[in-house]
Amino acid sequence: MNEFDFINRYLKQQTQDAQVVLGIGDDAAIVRPQAGMDLHLSSDMLLENRHFFANTAAADLAHKVMAVNLSDMAAMGATPKWALLSVALPKLDEAWLNDFCEHLFAIAKEYRVCLIGGDTTKGNLTFNVTIIGQAPSGQALRRDAAQLGDDVWVSGQIGLAAAALNHHWNHVRLPEAVFLQCEQKRLRPTPRVALGEAILSLAHAAQDVSDGLWQDLAHIAKASDVGMNVDFALIPTLSELKAHSEHREWVLSGGDDYELIFTAPKSAREAIIKAGLTSKTSITRIGEVVKEAGVRVFENQVAIELEQKGFDHFHE
Amino acid sequence: MNEFDFINRYLKQQTQDAQVVLGIGDDAAIVRPQAGMDLHLSSDMLLENRHFFANTAAADLAHKVMAVNLSDMAAMGATPKWALLSVALPKLDEAWLNDFCEHLFAIAKEYRVCLIGGDTTKGNLTFNVTIIGQAPSGQALRRDAAQLGDDVWVSGQIGLAAAALNHHWNHVRLPEAVFLQCEQKRLRPTPRVALGEAILSLAHAAQDVSDGLWQDLAHIAKASDVGMNVDFALIPTLSELKAHSEHREWVLSGGDDYELIFTAPKSAREAIIKAGLTSKTSITRIGEVVKEAGVRVFENQVAIELEQKGFDHFHE
Repeated sequence: MNEFDFINRYLKQQTQDAQVVLGIGDDAAIVRPQAGMDLHLSSDMLLENRHFFANTAAADLAHKVMAVNLSDMAAMGATPKWALLSVALPKLDEAWLNDFCEHLFAIAKEYRVCLIGGDTTKGNLTFNVTIIGQAPSGQALRRDAAQLGDDVWVSGQIGLAAAALNHHWNHVRLPEAVFLQCEQKRLRPTPRVALGEAILSLAHAAQDVSDGLWQDLAHIAKASDVGMNVDFALIPTLSELKAHSEHREWVLSGGDDYELIFTAPKSAREAIIKAGLTSKTSITRIGEVVKEAGVRVFENQVAIELEQKGFDHFHE
Repeated sequence: MNEFDFINRYLKQQTQDAQVVLGIGDDAAIVRPQAGMDLHLSSDMLLENRHFFANTAAADLAHKVMAVNLSDMAAMGATPKWALLSVALPKLDEAWLNDFCEHLFAIAKEYRVCLIGGDTTKGNLTFNVTIIGQAPSGQALRRDAAQLGDDVWVSGQIGLAAAALNHHWNHVRLPEAVFLQCEQKRLRPTPRVALGEAILSLAHAAQDVSDGLWQDLAHIAKASDVGMNVDFALIPTLSELKAHSEHREWVLSGGDDYELIFTAPKSAREAIIKAGLTSKTSITRIGEVVKEAGVRVFENQVAIELEQKGFDHFHE
C-alpha cells in the first residue's frame, strides 16, 4: 500500500453534503457557502507524547482529534460542516488504519461533518485537523461579548480528565470505577455542539474548557473587559473526586474537559435551561459577570488562591 | 514568554480584509464569504528532516510553508484569502520567531493572505498550514477536466529543486553558481498564483508539480480519463543541468518545483501566451492530451522508461 492507495482506500469516502463541490483528491477541495452564513474556522494540532500517550488506541485518537475541533465549533455556536485532516504516520499499518478511519468517519457522520481534504506523510504520529462550520452572519458566541450582570454557566462536569491524567502519572490512585469514568471523559469527550447551537441566540460569550476552567474563564473576562465571581461549590464535578486533596486543582486548572463555559443575561435563564434540555446537555450556573477585572473563585466566601490557573503549552 | 505572549506578540497582526469578521484569539476565526464565490481549501503538513533539513533558516521555512499552500490555490485558479497556521516548536526562541514571523507576514502580505488562526504547541518542529481561497462559483482548474486534443503546458523551469537536493545528499557536485540557483528554487519556490488566476477561464485542468512532473501529469490524465504525450526536449529546465546523467530523473520525477502544469484547448493558445505575459510567468507547451491512457514522454521519438516516476510519502 502506498500513499495514494491509503488516500483512495481509507480517506475518500462519499460525502452527502450538497455544499461540497469537490472533495478529496485534487489540489484543494471546493465548497459553496450558503447565503447569509458566516464561516467559522479553527485548527488543532495533536502530537504523540504531548497531547496523547504513545499507546492510545486508534479509535480513541480518531475521536479526540475530531472532538477537540468540534468543541471549538460548539464554543462559537457554529454548526460544523467540513474538516481537513493532516496526519503523519510512522508506517501504513492496515489494522491501525482500519480502526482509526472507522471511528473517524463514525464521529464525522454523527456530527454531519464531511472530510474534504488534508495531507498524509510519514513521520512521528501527528494530527492536525482544520474544521469549518457555519452560523448565521453576525451571530457567534465570541469571547469578547460577556456583559455586566450575565450569569456564568458551564456544561457537564469539570475536572474528570485531569483526575484520569493524574492517575496515569501515578500522582493519585483512583478507585477503578471512578478512574474508568474519568478516563472515558478524557479519551472520549463529548463536543457540546448541540448546546452551542441551542444557545447561539441566547448567550453572549462562550468558549470551551481546554486549558483549565479558571484560565478559560479569564480569557472571556479579559476579552470582554469585565470580571467574574464564581462559587466553587456550584462547579459540577464527580462527587467521588472531592475526597482527593488535588480536587480543586483538577477542577479549576485541569483542562481537557471540552465542556462549554458561557455567559448569558439573567433574563434568559429560563430559555437557557430549556436549551440545556433540548440539547440533552446538563448545564449549571456557577457565577456572575462583575465589573472588577479578573476571575475570583470563592469557597465559603473566601477567595481561593491557586499557583497555576491553567495549561501553558510551552511550560513543562 | 509563554504561549499567549507568543500568540499576542507575533501572530496577532492587524488584518486589512473586510471579509474577516474575527481573526486570531477566539475558539475560531470568522469569515464572511462573498456572494457568487466558491471557497477552495487545502492543507499541507511539513516535518523537520522529512520535508526540510533541520538547519533550514527560519525565513526559508516561513516562505516554504506558505508557498506550498499558495501553490495549491494557484493550481485551482483560486485567489488565496486566509490561512491557519499550526506550529510545534521545540522552544520559544525570540530570534527564530522574529525571523520566522517577519517573513511569514511578508509573504502573506505579498499574496494578500490574512493569517486568521491556528495552533501553537511544544514539540519537534512541525508546520501545518490550511489555506482558503476563492474563485467564482463553478470555475476551477480541476484535475478531472482535461480534454482530448488539449495542449499540455508547464510554467517556469523543472528539475532544479531535485538537483539542489541531490547536491545536498552528495549524489552530485554542482558548480556553485548552478547550485545556488537551484537551491534558491528549492528553498523559495514562487507560487504561481497570478498565472492560475490568469488562466482560470482559459485552461481546462491544472495541478502543481510537487511530487514529480511525470506522476503529477499522470494524476491529471487519470482523473480526466485521457492520456498524454510529452516531448522531453520541450520541458524547460536549467541548461547547465543537462550535462548530468541524473538530469532526466530530476526533471521527470524530482518534484518540489511548485510550477503549474495545465491543459488548455489549442484554440486558446494565443490567450494562454498572453496570460503568461500578463502574469509575468514563463510558460512552455510540452505536449498534448491524447486518447491512449497513461503519460508517455518521448525523446527523439523514443518513449523514455523511468523506474520511479514520482515521490511517495511512505516510500523511503
